[in-house]
Amino acid sequence: MNKRQPDLTVVLENVFDPHNISAVMRSCDAVGVEEIYVLTTKIPPHKKWGAKSSSSAAKWLTIHQFDNTEKCFLSLRKRYSTILTTYLSHDALGLHELDLTKSTALVFGNEHSGVSEEILTFADGNFCIPQVGMIRSLNISVACAVSLYEAFRQKQLAGHYNQRKLNDVRVNELHKKWERNESEK
Amino acid sequence: MNKRQPDLTVVLENVFDPHNISAVMRSCDAVGVEEIYVLTTKIPPHKKWGAKSSSSAAKWLTIHQFDNTEKCFLSLRKRYSTILTTYLSHDALGLHELDLTKSTALVFGNEHSGVSEEILTFADGNFCIPQVGMIRSLNISVACAVSLYEAFRQKQLAGHYNQRKLNDVRVNELHKKWERNESEK
Repeated sequence: MNKRQPDLTVVLENVFDPHNISAVMRSCDAVGVEEIYVLTTKIPPHKKWGAKSSSSAAKWLTIHQFDNTEKCFLSLRKRYSTILTTYLSHDALGLHELDLTKSTALVFGNEHSGVSEEILTFADGNFCIPQVGMIRSLNISVACAVSLYEAFRQKQLAGHYNQRKLNDVRVNELHKKWERNESEK
Repeated sequence: MNKRQPDLTVVLENVFDPHNISAVMRSCDAVGVEEIYVLTTKIPPHKKWGAKSSSSAAKWLTIHQFDNTEKCFLSLRKRYSTILTTYLSHDALGLHELDLTKSTALVFGNEHSGVSEEILTFADGNFCIPQVGMIRSLNISVACAVSLYEAFRQKQLAGHYNQRKLNDVRVNELHKKWERNESEK
């Protein structure tokens, strides 16, 4: 609880494979991301996250679901200063050039088509994970984990894990939720 | 080819899920790892890597298979100065404390039981990926990708991708192999 980071989140746009989503959640939990945004405009909404399973990270995260891009981004804007999408534009920044100690939401797109054109108009910029190989694509759960751990590295250096960042109200809310989770085991 | 890094490799000890292995290969390709070691002492040897598929990273990597730990490590010692396993001992170093610009082999263990006791006696030390979440384990493909990209970050900073590191003999060998791959499409 004391390591949760209210200034970092992940947005999954039309990511459809439940295995990818649970892998992303596990990485989020590992670096202290507290909430994630799941946007489904081109696929049916996801029904469950396996939140009852004790090994599921869904249990320890707050998951915001949207089927409307505008509403999703309105909500994101209230909490995060910068929204960046994984899109290989000519002006995309490399992952290691980002300042991830600042309040940031990272958007990952659909497994096949990536982030949509629509999303790009809502975001502040693009970033990419540098690659020097023969195959120029990474699985979304891998891309997300690599991005989150770069944020972790930067935030740890900057002391973000040294003291509690959630406020008392949020801590109480989460304590209640987590206790409920435990009692439902 | 010019970005391949002969001073970094991955060893997979009794990793059995083919999806995990191909995800690891994709990450290896992405950061320029040229060869990997697959050690199967407790599971049957893997039969194929999908090396015929153009989207398979196996096509672009050299895969050394062993069913004998000693032979595997003799081979590793000839090429890599330090061998580190992902094992959470009391003296394990955090990933971000490692100097991955030096010649290193990173060993990842079985999905359920991790690296074996036997392997630990052959290695120079242990490292772990820091985690601050409620669930204390990461999928092996995620753990490997996060480790490889930390190596990438350090190596890029140190200029390892600025000039070719493979020698002429190896470059010629690989050119021939890759051409063969292409013609088999």
